[in-house]
Amino acid sequence: IKEEWIEDNHPIDIAEALSELEASEINNFTKLIETEDLADIFEESEKELQIDILKCKSSQEIIEIFSHMAADDITDILGLLPIQKRKKLLRHMKQDDALVVKNLLGYDKESAGGIMTTEYLLLNKNLTTTEALKKLKNIAPDTEIIDTIFISDDNKKLVGSVDLRDILSSDDNKILEELMDDNIVKVTADVDQEIVAQQVAKYDLTVIPVINNSGILIGIITVDDIIDVIEAENTEDLYKMHGVDEEESSDATLMQSVQSRLPWMFINLATAFLATFTVAIFEDVISQVVALAAAMPIVAGMGGNAGTQTLSIVIRGIALGEIDFKDNWKLLFKEAMVGIINGAATGLVTGLILYLMYGNYYLGLIIFLAMILNLLIAGMFGFLIPLSLQSLGIDPALASAIFLTTVTDVFGFFVFLGLAKTFLIYLI
Amino acid sequence: IKEEWIEDNHPIDIAEALSELEASEINNFTKLIETEDLADIFEESEKELQIDILKCKSSQEIIEIFSHMAADDITDILGLLPIQKRKKLLRHMKQDDALVVKNLLGYDKESAGGIMTTEYLLLNKNLTTTEALKKLKNIAPDTEIIDTIFISDDNKKLVGSVDLRDILSSDDNKILEELMDDNIVKVTADVDQEIVAQQVAKYDLTVIPVINNSGILIGIITVDDIIDVIEAENTEDLYKMHGVDEEESSDATLMQSVQSRLPWMFINLATAFLATFTVAIFEDVISQVVALAAAMPIVAGMGGNAGTQTLSIVIRGIALGEIDFKDNWKLLFKEAMVGIINGAATGLVTGLILYLMYGNYYLGLIIFLAMILNLLIAGMFGFLIPLSLQSLGIDPALASAIFLTTVTDVFGFFVFLGLAKTFLIYLI
Ligand SMILES: [Mg+2]
Ligand SMILES: [Mg+2]
Ligand SMILES: [Mg+2]
Ligand SMILES: [Mg+2]
Ligand SMILES: [Mg+2]
Ligand SMILES: [Mg+2]
Ligand SMILES: [Mg+2]
Ligand SMILES: [Mg+2]
Ligand SMILES: [Mg+2]
Ligand SMILES: [Mg+2]
Ligand SMILES: [Mg+2]
Ligand SMILES: [Mg+2]
Ligand SMILES: [Mg+2]
Repeated sequence: IKEEWIEDNHPIDIAEALSELEASEINNFTKLIETEDLADIFEESEKELQIDILKCKSSQEIIEIFSHMAADDITDILGLLPIQKRKKLLRHMKQDDALVVKNLLGYDKESAGGIMTTEYLLLNKNLTTTEALKKLKNIAPDTEIIDTIFISDDNKKLVGSVDLRDILSSDDNKILEELMDDNIVKVTADVDQEIVAQQVAKYDLTVIPVINNSGILIGIITVDDIIDVIEAENTEDLYKMHGVDEEESSDATLMQSVQSRLPWMFINLATAFLATFTVAIFEDVISQVVALAAAMPIVAGMGGNAGTQTLSIVIRGIALGEIDFKDNWKLLFKEAMVGIINGAATGLVTGLILYLMYGNYYLGLIIFLAMILNLLIAGMFGFLIPLSLQSLGIDPALASAIFLTTVTDVFGFFVFLGLAKTFLIYLI
Repeated sequence: IKEEWIEDNHPIDIAEALSELEASEINNFTKLIETEDLADIFEESEKELQIDILKCKSSQEIIEIFSHMAADDITDILGLLPIQKRKKLLRHMKQDDALVVKNLLGYDKESAGGIMTTEYLLLNKNLTTTEALKKLKNIAPDTEIIDTIFISDDNKKLVGSVDLRDILSSDDNKILEELMDDNIVKVTADVDQEIVAQQVAKYDLTVIPVINNSGILIGIITVDDIIDVIEAENTEDLYKMHGVDEEESSDATLMQSVQSRLPWMFINLATAFLATFTVAIFEDVISQVVALAAAMPIVAGMGGNAGTQTLSIVIRGIALGEIDFKDNWKLLFKEAMVGIINGAATGLVTGLILYLMYGNYYLGLIIFLAMILNLLIAGMFGFLIPLSLQSLGIDPALASAIFLTTVTDVFGFFVFLGLAKTFLIYLI
C-alpha cells in the first residue's frame, strides 16, 4: 500500500506530510521506501526535515540519496551541516561530484554562483542538428532544463543558445551555429541573486547561464529557483522594512519570534525617545494648551502614513529595478509635491475640525501648516532613506519604516509644537 | 543600420528605449521596421507604449501584428482598448482566432482563465513516441512551451503529461501512455491567479494546465506570466498594506500619485481622530501631569511597530499559502505572548528611563503596564486584522497597517492615560 501511495502523491506533498511526524516515525518511514523515492522527497523537504532525515542515515546512504539529486540542492544541504559531517560526506562522494559541490560551496549563497547548478546542456556550435539530437538523446535525462541548449565555440566559450524546438523542426541538416541565437542574457557567478531574478523576469527566461570571467559556461540557474529567490527577497523586504529578522518563519517558536523582533523593538524604542525628548522641550506649552496633546497623534500618524506610502513605492521600485539614480531628483521633487498637496488637503480638514472642537482659529491654522510641512518631510525622507541606505551598501529596506516614523514623529512634533509656542498668545 | 540594431538588441530593450520617445518618433520608428519585429517589440512593451503604437496603426496592420503574438497577450491588449475599437479588431481577425480571444476575454483578469494562453501541445495517449516526435516537429514552432507535452484520452480529457526528454531518450517505440506521468497538477479556469502561482512555485512547474469542468484542457499558463503575477501580487500587498492604490506605478505623474494616495490619507485621518478623541477625554489628566504627553509617542510608536511586525509575518504567510485557519488559534496565542514578552522587556527599560527623567516611580510603573497591554493588543490585532479581512472576502492586506495603528494608538492612549487617571494622586 505504501508504494502505491508514494506513486500517487507528489514528493513535495509527501514531504509536507512527513514534516508533521515525530523523528522516530520519519526514521521508520525512510527505511521502508526506495532510495530514489526518498531522494525525491528529500529534495523537496524543508531544512528541518532534511536535517531530521540525515540524522538517521549513514554516510553511505546519504551519498546514495545525493546521487539522485541536482548539484545545487546537494550544495544547499551540505551548507546546512556541521563542517565535520560535511567533510566526511565529501570524502565519501565520487571525486568528480565532490569537486563540483566543493566548487559550488565556494560561492556566496545569495549570488548567481550560490544558486546555480551544473546539469546543463552544452554543445559545440559546429555540430549538425542530427548529431545534436543524437547527443541530446543520451544526456537529456541528466539535465534540469532541456528546451534551451547552450552553444560553445571551439575555445569552450559560451556563444549562444538554441531552442530545442528549432532543432526538432529544422528540416535540413543545419549546423547549430546557423540556428543559434547569439544575443543571449547571461550573468557572472558573483552577481547578486536579486539582479539575476530581475533579468529572468525581464527577459522571460526559464533558465539563465552563468559564465566565468573568461566567458566559459560554469552553471545554469533554473526558473523554479528564481521563483524561490523572488519570494525570499519579497519576504525579506517586508520583514526588514518593519524590523523583523529575515530568518523568522511563519512557524517559528515563541522564543525564535521574540529573538527575531525584540532587538528591533529596542531600536524602535531608542528612536521613540527622540520623539519624547522633542515633546519634553515643549512641556510648558502643552501645559498651557492641552488641546495640543490631543492633536499630536494626528500630526505624527499622518506623517508616518504618508512617509510609508512613499517608502512602499520606492522599496518596490528598487526591488523591481525600476528606480535608479538617473530619475532620482525628479522623483524626490514629485514626492515632496505629493506631500505638500496631501498635507494641504488633509490639513485643511483637520484644521477645520480642531477649530470646531476647540473654537480656536489659530489652532486650526497651526495644524494646517504643521501637516503640510510634516508631509513634505515625510515624502522626502520616504524617498531618501531607502536610497541612502542603498548607496551606503546597506539593504534599502532595512528598518526603513522605523527610521522614517522617527523622522516624521520628531519633525512633526517639533514643527507643530514650535508653531504653537510661537503663536502661544493666540492659543491661550 | 537600424535592422542590425534590431537584430542585436532584445525586443524588451528596444521597447524600453522606445518608451522614452515622443509619439511621433515612435510612429516613425514603427513604419521603418518589419511587422514581425514590431510584433516582438509590441508584445514586450508597457501598456502606455502599446496604446501609443496602436493609435498610429490601421486595423489591418494591428491584425498583422497580432498574428505573430500569443493569444493571452492579444487578449490583454484588447482588454485595454475601448469597446468599439475592440469589436472592430475582432471583426477583422480570422474567425478562429477571434473566437479564441473572445473566449479568453470572458475570464476574470486575475483568474487562471485570464492569464492562460492556448498555444499548448496536446497529444493522444495512444500515439507512439515516433509518431509523437513527427507531430511535434510540425507544431513545435507555434507553442509557448515545448518540454512539457500534455496527454489526452479518447474523450479529449487531460490525463497526464510527458516530458520531451523522455520521448527523446526512450529507445524503443513506446506508446505515450507508458511514459506519461498521470499525477499532474492542474487548475480550473476560475481559480485565483495567486493560488495558481502558489501551485507553480510549490511544484516547480514551468507550465500549468488549465482544464474546464469536464476535465478537458482549455489552456496553459507559462512560468514567465506566473513571475509577473507574483511580482504584481507582492507589489499589491505592500501597497495595500500602507494605503497606496495598487495601480500606482513608480513613474506615475504627480496627479496620479495624489489620486492614488489621498483617499487613504483621509481614511487615515478619520482613524487618527479616534486617537485624538481618546486623548481629549483625558485632557484634565494631561494638564496636571504634562510628562504624560511626552511619553505618549512611545506607547503609540512601540504598539504600532510591534503590530506591524506581526502584520508583516501574517501577510507574507497568507501570500505564500503558509498560514491557514487550522493553525490560527495557536498562532494568535503565540503573537499575544510575543507581545507580552516584548512589551515587558521594552516597558521595563522605558519605565526606568522615565523614572530617571521625572523622578516619579509611578510614572515608570504605569508605562511599563501600558506597554505590556498595548503590545499584547498589537500582536493580537496584527494577527486578527488580515485574517478577518480575508474571511470577509476582502484582500487581507487592505489598509491593514492603517487599521492596526488606529487600534494601537487608541488602545495605547486609553490604557496609558486611563492608568494615569487611576493613579493620578501618585503622579502629581
Ligand atoms: Mg545553493
Ligand atoms: Mg517577464
Ligand atoms: Mg511576457
Ligand atoms: Mg535547482
Ligand atoms: Mg538580498
Ligand atoms: Mg532585497
Ligand atoms: Mg490576460
Ligand atoms: Mg519551488
Ligand atoms: Mg526546488
Ligand atoms: Mg504569456
Ligand atoms: Mg489578487
Ligand atoms: Mg494578494
Ligand atoms: Mg505611528
